[in-house]
Amino acid sequence: MLSSSVEISSCAPTKKSHKLYDVVIIGAGMSGVNVGKLLKEKGLTENVLILEANDYIGGRLRSKVLLNGKATIDIGGQWIGPPQPKVLKLVKELGLSTYPQYFEQEKRRSSLVFPSIGGKKHILRYTGSIPSDPKNVTDEVLLDFDTCIRKIERMANTVPVDAPHECDKAEEYDSQTVQTFMDNLFKTEIAKDFFKTFVVTVFACQPYEMSALFMLWYIAVAGGKFENLMNVRDAAQDCKIYRGSQGIVTGVAEKFKLNVLLNHHVVKIKDEGSLMTVTCKNGAVFQSKYVVTTNLPWTHLGIEYDPPLPSARHNFCQRTPMGYAIKCFMLFKEPFWRKKYDSNGFILSLQPEDYITLTYDVGYKDDIICGICGFVYAEKACEFSTLPREKKIDLLLKQYSETLGGTYEEWKSQFVDYIDKDWGMEPYARGSYGAVTAPGTLVKTKLAFREPLYNRKLFIAGTESASRWIGYMEGAIDAAERVVSELTPLFEGQGRTSKL
Amino acid sequence: MLSSSVEISSCAPTKKSHKLYDVVIIGAGMSGVNVGKLLKEKGLTENVLILEANDYIGGRLRSKVLLNGKATIDIGGQWIGPPQPKVLKLVKELGLSTYPQYFEQEKRRSSLVFPSIGGKKHILRYTGSIPSDPKNVTDEVLLDFDTCIRKIERMANTVPVDAPHECDKAEEYDSQTVQTFMDNLFKTEIAKDFFKTFVVTVFACQPYEMSALFMLWYIAVAGGKFENLMNVRDAAQDCKIYRGSQGIVTGVAEKFKLNVLLNHHVVKIKDEGSLMTVTCKNGAVFQSKYVVTTNLPWTHLGIEYDPPLPSARHNFCQRTPMGYAIKCFMLFKEPFWRKKYDSNGFILSLQPEDYITLTYDVGYKDDIICGICGFVYAEKACEFSTLPREKKIDLLLKQYSETLGGTYEEWKSQFVDYIDKDWGMEPYARGSYGAVTAPGTLVKTKLAFREPLYNRKLFIAGTESASRWIGYMEGAIDAAERVVSELTPLFEGQGRTSKL
Repeated sequence: MLSSSVEISSCAPTKKSHKLYDVVIIGAGMSGVNVGKLLKEKGLTENVLILEANDYIGGRLRSKVLLNGKATIDIGGQWIGPPQPKVLKLVKELGLSTYPQYFEQEKRRSSLVFPSIGGKKHILRYTGSIPSDPKNVTDEVLLDFDTCIRKIERMANTVPVDAPHECDKAEEYDSQTVQTFMDNLFKTEIAKDFFKTFVVTVFACQPYEMSALFMLWYIAVAGGKFENLMNVRDAAQDCKIYRGSQGIVTGVAEKFKLNVLLNHHVVKIKDEGSLMTVTCKNGAVFQSKYVVTTNLPWTHLGIEYDPPLPSARHNFCQRTPMGYAIKCFMLFKEPFWRKKYDSNGFILSLQPEDYITLTYDVGYKDDIICGICGFVYAEKACEFSTLPREKKIDLLLKQYSETLGGTYEEWKSQFVDYIDKDWGMEPYARGSYGAVTAPGTLVKTKLAFREPLYNRKLFIAGTESASRWIGYMEGAIDAAERVVSELTPLFEGQGRTSKL
Repeated sequence: MLSSSVEISSCAPTKKSHKLYDVVIIGAGMSGVNVGKLLKEKGLTENVLILEANDYIGGRLRSKVLLNGKATIDIGGQWIGPPQPKVLKLVKELGLSTYPQYFEQEKRRSSLVFPSIGGKKHILRYTGSIPSDPKNVTDEVLLDFDTCIRKIERMANTVPVDAPHECDKAEEYDSQTVQTFMDNLFKTEIAKDFFKTFVVTVFACQPYEMSALFMLWYIAVAGGKFENLMNVRDAAQDCKIYRGSQGIVTGVAEKFKLNVLLNHHVVKIKDEGSLMTVTCKNGAVFQSKYVVTTNLPWTHLGIEYDPPLPSARHNFCQRTPMGYAIKCFMLFKEPFWRKKYDSNGFILSLQPEDYITLTYDVGYKDDIICGICGFVYAEKACEFSTLPREKKIDLLLKQYSETLGGTYEEWKSQFVDYIDKDWGMEPYARGSYGAVTAPGTLVKTKLAFREPLYNRKLFIAGTESASRWIGYMEGAIDAAERVVSELTPLFEGQGRTSKL
């Protein structure tokens, strides 16, 4: 996917570069390349180097080409939608085409498997966005859910998007796990289970792992609307990039001829007073006026900062672990579940024995490839991660046949291939989709998630530092924009550097 | 403090050692040296190497010599007590002498400053172990406190000490922060504040940062009794080592002639199938049949494991951050607060403007040095950490004079020296006293806190992996004993190796 116009080197360079860069950016993911792009576009500097630990550009946006290039699937982040104007603008600017997520909400049925509804013996199959079933999902449940969501949105809208610790009730919210928050809010078990599927599928975490303040902040930065995060159409799961989401990142790198060094894992960052020195594991050393980090919070714990990171920042990084989603593609000969079982391929399951909590119909353009994309989350992902491939395939065939219709044998006879991506085992991610804060972290560490360090010589980008759509591509761009706005007066103060 | 009989080298060795060790131990703290000791004592092997990242032996046990060797203070962990038989036995074995923590509970007064009691305007001064004041600390408060503590102890005693996730109510407890747990349990604000001082001073964390299951487990492993952790006399704060607690660790290293390499920071651990390869930042490479890690959970995130750590273990390390205590010694000409202000030098303060939450009278043998040892915790430590020395001294003189009696000027005229230890800035600790688990961690990651990895070639010691007195010296020894018991059948299975 990379054209030759991008300068990429993965060979070991000479030990120490004699060049002084204006900016060294750590990480060639969505945020890193957008910092590079904006620095050039605004005419601040072209003297920029991006160091990437992996052997590819894209970070958690990663695409896999199938059928000799006829189809592309995203094994990392994939969706974008109308409430995310920055990424939509960028996609348009790069001339990439999108296609809608297959989700025949009104025509075909979705499947819910909740212990509170009766588990596998009472799989709820419904059309439309909100299931209704007089036996279980009563008016009382629907009213409870709706009332609580409105309450949550009102609370979310009290959280300042760029300073969550300044919320009036910051300590109260940050003192609770989302589980405690839910237990106190919902009156009916079924409504609480609906909300739990929101938490698990949106954060790739169990409600007991995460701060309620973080969740409210996350809703606030997504426009303050629950639907923006949870829905498919016109929301965060609206559409995908035809040739893969990684193409956005590589597209920016190509178009702006960004200078990216792959296989350069940063292990040391030293403040030398007038400049910064960045050392990589392979021995390469670079010097720059400014450093921008985009790497995940926990990965900073493996970097030797000299002088050491301030305690608040280190505490933030210690207390902001990753969610955990394993993305599993089951490819089949045909999307037979659609007509035969009147299914849109959408499952939400909280059943303890089910590994997969969420599925979508792959729904590739023209159905060149057909399949179901499923997600295994959190503590189940820790276990699933250790299983052999054949066992995983077997478990998924079993769950899909039980939940969507048909027999195990039928699903097996339709089976073509299994491709999964275990983000928990990726060396520089060790989880996905993104990071979440443990309770107390935001109140304790305040602005450490984004404040510049080392006398404004080190800046923090990455979607985890955003004030819009944290954890999403939109957030990665938002954080890049903020960092470039933080850098702008520094360049303007000293006169703009000449272009190379 | 180190005699010449310990083999210590801090110079860079040849790149790769050709020797095959039976066991390489990472970390020369209390747990690491006890693994070495027990391997020798049990006759399993003497072919052991200890790699220590710091330039000293002792880890979080660190002593500082004052007055040309006449006195020693512990700037790290210090106390041991009767409920900790393993460390008491070791101290005796090494011939070290102890002295009781100064705490004239019945004779002199302690000082409490709680917002719930009226803050600085109503400093409660009391004798005995439980304050009583008919105006504030009523029978209702005392009954509430006592009832809740008994309830908590009953809950703690349902937590299996070696497998906390197997507690019947594990998920319920692990889903809550300690703050939520307290809010639901206590009926009176003052009783809750008493309990809060327990949490803050014992864990060096705010109640909102920590899992309730972790707290219950911590009480369980300390013998199931709240008093064991909280009290001074006959409990965890009973006595100190006359020549400093670091002397226990160096004493073991000397007595057992342990082979310790200082300044060897491990950055890579590779499973080669039949053996393990351990690489240090300075380029030194060692090979061994087994590896024992004793380093803190978060520090594993900076080690390149090959193959990568299993997800459950990595998740545990991501979600088990450090508490944060800054230990501040204020030395004075005389312990004038004792007689003049009838004070035992003991303060517990929850007042928002007070940096110090807990103090003890240094009470050194024969009062060769006099002073007050104070602790700054958690979010206050993040802030205190950034203050200049003169400001810190000023703040402490102000707080102590306001709380214990006398004027700022009097305290200043008695002032001799200020020595603090900011454990949050120590490169391989970045916090103290120890690690705590965020909510959900224990349920999610189960036995990852202690289970051997890499087909029983890598073992986990360190006080964070203990089943007795986690976080204490006792726990460090307990974990060492468990690891050696895990290693024993492996050595016995292959015949014991010859002594060197």
